Amino acid sequence: MQLLQDRIRREGKVLPGNIIKVDGFLNHRVDTKLLEALADEFAKHFDISKITLVLTAEASGIALATVCANKYGVPMLFAKKAKSDNIEGGLYQSEVFSYTYKKKFTMIVSHEWLHASDHVLIIDDFMAKGNAMQGLIDLVHAAGATLEGIGVAVEKGFQGGGDALRASGIPYKALAVIEQADENGIIFREED
Amino acid sequence: MQLLQDRIRREGKVLPGNIIKVDGFLNHRVDTKLLEALADEFAKHFDISKITLVLTAEASGIALATVCANKYGVPMLFAKKAKSDNIEGGLYQSEVFSYTYKKKFTMIVSHEWLHASDHVLIIDDFMAKGNAMQGLIDLVHAAGATLEGIGVAVEKGFQGGGDALRASGIPYKALAVIEQADENGIIFREED
Repeated sequence: MQLLQDRIRREGKVLPGNIIKVDGFLNHRVDTKLLEALADEFAKHFDISKITLVLTAEASGIALATVCANKYGVPMLFAKKAKSDNIEGGLYQSEVFSYTYKKKFTMIVSHEWLHASDHVLIIDDFMAKGNAMQGLIDLVHAAGATLEGIGVAVEKGFQGGGDALRASGIPYKALAVIEQADENGIIFREED
Repeated sequence: MQLLQDRIRREGKVLPGNIIKVDGFLNHRVDTKLLEALADEFAKHFDISKITLVLTAEASGIALATVCANKYGVPMLFAKKAKSDNIEGGLYQSEVFSYTYKKKFTMIVSHEWLHASDHVLIIDDFMAKGNAMQGLIDLVHAAGATLEGIGVAVEKGFQGGGDALRASGIPYKALAVIEQADENGIIFREED
């Protein structure tokens, strides 16, 4: 998606360790008009009429998932990290190793809000190795729900998570795939 | 706000320890159409034309703050918990004791995205004692920005955070103030 690539090129920063910082518009300060454009773009790639729920992971996926869910007219559900006193009873759980935070955490959703009858579109802002994404997929499967597709704003293509999903047969779309990011700048993969 | 009170009455649950669970529409599974109505209601109570930024705290404030920022045509900034490898350089920090999680955490925003020239509306989904809210206020003050107001969807009135804000003189609006919540049900405070 040209609009997103241009924005990353203009405002993204590459930090040591292949970290790509897009926190001025995507995952710290958030440009909600950009998110609207991303949501419209996802709608070209998935059959939105089938979707009953948009699922994401806290925290940085929530903004994009909210805008998507609002446009598609379905609820947004975010998987929480760890257990708070506010969640009673039955929980679907998955264990995730976070590449960003270099530690394991548990992702949970309540049985109450994810059902076998749901048709789920997973949305996230960023994907690298895909560990958090696998955690979300596991939650959908644990509930016996149907996974209709996975949409990611920015994929770090060189870290393999996206290619594993493409090979899996799950409908998958990343709006910008970064192939290389270093002191020479950012190179995007050609659109699939 | 009648719409929100009705929703809480219909779908909210009271758990032991005065915990009010609204996770079917506000802070786990999220009804984005309801959030739109809340954003419109806040716009009646604050001078939105002055606002340059909506600030919230991760994670559960993000959905509501996103919808508000999108309606008001300004960016949304969410304070993060703890430090990730993705945030470089200067940070405004505040220490917060979470009533929900029974532990201390550090809230951060990057110097890059909160400026002395900003006019900030703080938005959060829930407030009890107001500890996280005070953390957000501290971040605004640390940046030398102007705090234009604070909007909260659900206030637990019996825990004092809201009344402290009312006494402080900061423009403040809670859309539903719960005065009492126990096995007999939920009682709301009359609108101010």
